[in-house]
Amino acid sequence: VRHAVILAGGSGTRLWPTSRRERPKQLLPIARDDEPMIKGAVAIAQGVVGESVLVVTAQAQAEATRAAVPDVDLVIEPVGRNTAAAIALGATAIAARDPDAVIAVLPADQHVRDRVGMMDALDVCLAAVERDDVIALVGIPPTRPETGFGYLEMAAGPSDGARPVLRFVEKPDLERARAYLASGRHLWNAGIFCLSARRALTELAWYLPETLRAARALVAPAPHGQIALGGDPDDAVAAYADLPSVSFDHGVMEKLCDGAAADGRVVAVAAAVGWNDVGSWAALPEVRGIDGEGNTIAGQAVVIDGRGNVVATDDGTLVALVGVSDLVVVRSGDAILVVPKDQAQRVREVVEVLSARGLGRYL
Amino acid sequence: VRHAVILAGGSGTRLWPTSRRERPKQLLPIARDDEPMIKGAVAIAQGVVGESVLVVTAQAQAEATRAAVPDVDLVIEPVGRNTAAAIALGATAIAARDPDAVIAVLPADQHVRDRVGMMDALDVCLAAVERDDVIALVGIPPTRPETGFGYLEMAAGPSDGARPVLRFVEKPDLERARAYLASGRHLWNAGIFCLSARRALTELAWYLPETLRAARALVAPAPHGQIALGGDPDDAVAAYADLPSVSFDHGVMEKLCDGAAADGRVVAVAAAVGWNDVGSWAALPEVRGIDGEGNTIAGQAVVIDGRGNVVATDDGTLVALVGVSDLVVVRSGDAILVVPKDQAQRVREVVEVLSARGLGRYL
Repeated sequence: VRHAVILAGGSGTRLWPTSRRERPKQLLPIARDDEPMIKGAVAIAQGVVGESVLVVTAQAQAEATRAAVPDVDLVIEPVGRNTAAAIALGATAIAARDPDAVIAVLPADQHVRDRVGMMDALDVCLAAVERDDVIALVGIPPTRPETGFGYLEMAAGPSDGARPVLRFVEKPDLERARAYLASGRHLWNAGIFCLSARRALTELAWYLPETLRAARALVAPAPHGQIALGGDPDDAVAAYADLPSVSFDHGVMEKLCDGAAADGRVVAVAAAVGWNDVGSWAALPEVRGIDGEGNTIAGQAVVIDGRGNVVATDDGTLVALVGVSDLVVVRSGDAILVVPKDQAQRVREVVEVLSARGLGRYL
Repeated sequence: VRHAVILAGGSGTRLWPTSRRERPKQLLPIARDDEPMIKGAVAIAQGVVGESVLVVTAQAQAEATRAAVPDVDLVIEPVGRNTAAAIALGATAIAARDPDAVIAVLPADQHVRDRVGMMDALDVCLAAVERDDVIALVGIPPTRPETGFGYLEMAAGPSDGARPVLRFVEKPDLERARAYLASGRHLWNAGIFCLSARRALTELAWYLPETLRAARALVAPAPHGQIALGGDPDDAVAAYADLPSVSFDHGVMEKLCDGAAADGRVVAVAAAVGWNDVGSWAALPEVRGIDGEGNTIAGQAVVIDGRGNVVATDDGTLVALVGVSDLVVVRSGDAILVVPKDQAQRVREVVEVLSARGLGRYL
C-alpha cells in the first residue's frame, strides 16, 4: 500500500523574522495567507497516497504542527536529527503497520505551484518503486544557475519517465551551475523521493545502522493503528538525541549512486512543476506573484514610487515604502528586517549577530 | 516683567509614524530618549524669564502636554489655529496679569543643541524689547542652502547684537538659497522672537483684529493667577475655531517690515546655537549624533554592513538592517516607514496616500 512521510522537523531562521526557532517555515502561511506551508505538502501527499500520511516533526513543533494539520498522524522526534533519522523513524513506523509499504517522502516547507503535476510525478515514482524496488526521486529541471541547491546528474536518455541518477552533485559554484543549466542532464534535488519501506530499512541498516537502531527504539507498534513511543523511553530519547546529524541524501542515496555500488537503483523523474524551496525572502515573488509595479506584498502595505520590493507584515501593522526598490522589508512580532533583495540570504548574518550579542530572544 | 509663551499647538505628521495626529512632535522624545521635545523649550524659557512660562496648546494635546510639562501654566485652544491666534491667546492671557509684560515666544518642537547660547540670544532680544519696544527675533545663521525655511534679510552692519530686519523671505529655491548662504546677510527664521505684550496686542488689533477679538473672548483673568476661559464659552469657542489659519510671521511681522511701514521696528539677533527644527527624519543624525559607522540609532537595532542610516524604533522592537545605506527606517506603534534619507520629506506622500485609501487610522 502507498504511504507518505512528510518531513517537518526543520527549525530554520532563513525567513527570519517571520520564521523563528520555535515557529519554522513549514508552519507559516508564506505562500498563501490562509495556509501554513505544510498543508500544501499534505495535500500533495493525500492526492497521491490517500489517507496514510505520516508527519515527522520535532517535539518543539509538535503542538503547532498538530494544529496546522490535525487530520494526519504525527511521529514526534525528541529533537530534530536531520532527514536520515526522520526517515528512519517514519519508515519504521510505517513498516510496523504495513511491511509491504511503498513510501513517498516530501519536505513540509516547499512550495509547489502545480500540485497536480507533482502528484503525477510522484505517481510515476511510486510505480517505479512498485515495479523495480528502486529509489525514485522527483527532480526539478533547473530554471536558473542556482548555487544553493544540490543537483542530480542523470543518465542520458529520454527525458520522460524515470531515468537512472549517475551522481548526486553538491552545491556547485556559479560556473558549474551554469554548465548544469546548459547540460540538460542535471536536475535540482528537491529532497522528494519514493522508496519501499523494506528498502529504506535495508539501506539504513547497511549505511546508518545506529540511526535505524535509535529509530526502532523510539517507535513501537500500538493497538488501533496509533503510533507510540516504545522501549525504555528515556534511553531511547537519549540515543536518538545523540545521533549524528546526517541527511538521507548524504548518508544513503549518494552512496548508492557511488562508483561500484551504482547499479541503477536510484532513478529520478523530471517534473517542471513550479517548485520552490522558499529558501529566502527573495523567493516570495515567485510563490506569491507580483503586482503591477513588480512589488510582492503580504499584509498591509503602501509602496510609493518603488518597484521590485518584497514586503511582508502581519498583525495589521502597516509598512510604508517610499522611493525604494528591490528591497526586502519584513516585520513579524517584535522584529523587522530590511535587506536588499539580492542579499536576502544575509539574514544568516543577522541571526549570528543577534546570537553573539545576547539578543537570541529575537530569534 | 519677563514672560514666555511656548507654542505647542502643532499636530504634524512629518515624523510619522512616530508622530501622529494625536501625538505631535513636541511631545515625543526625538532628540533624547528621556525627554519630550517641549521640555527643551521650557528649559530655555525658564532659563531666560524665570517661572512665568505659558504653554499654548490645543485641546486634543492638552492632557499629554500637561503630563510632559506639569510645572507650567497651560492655555488651551479649542483647536489649533496657527501661530497668530496662539500668540493672541498667550499675549492676552499674560497682559491680563501683567500689562507691562515682555514676552519671549518659542515653538515647542525644535531642538537647540546650545541651550545657554539660545538663552543669551533671547536675553539680547528681551533687552532690545525693553529698551526700544521692537519685535526682536532670534535668527539662525544658515549652515546649508536650505529650501525648507523662511529667511530674514538683515540690514548691513556689525553681526553681533540686534540688527534691523529688512525683509521676511519665503522659502527660496535652491539657487536663491545658495545665494542667501553666501550673502552673509540672511538668517533662518526660526519662529523665535520677543516683544512686549502691549505691542503684540496693538499690532494684532491693527492687522488681525478678529483674531485678537476671538482670543480675548476665550481668555479671562481669573483670581489667584489662574488662566480660565471667559465670556460665553460656546460662542467664544466657535469664533476661535472659525478664525482663518494665519501665522504671526505672515499676518503681522512681514507687514511690519514691508515697504512704507518698515521703520526698524523688527530686529533680529544672530545665534549659531545648533538649532534644528527636526522637520524630517533626515534631521535625526544632527540632533542625536552618529555612531562609528555613521548610523543614527534610537531604540533596539542591529546594522550589518550599512552606513548613514537613521533607525528609530520603540517598545523593544528590533530593527535589523543588512547591506543598506542612507536609509530611514522608523517603526512606531502599528506602522513602519522606509524611505531614503535624502527623500525623507516624502513622508508627506505617505500621509496623503493613507488618507486617500481610507487608512487614516494609521495617521
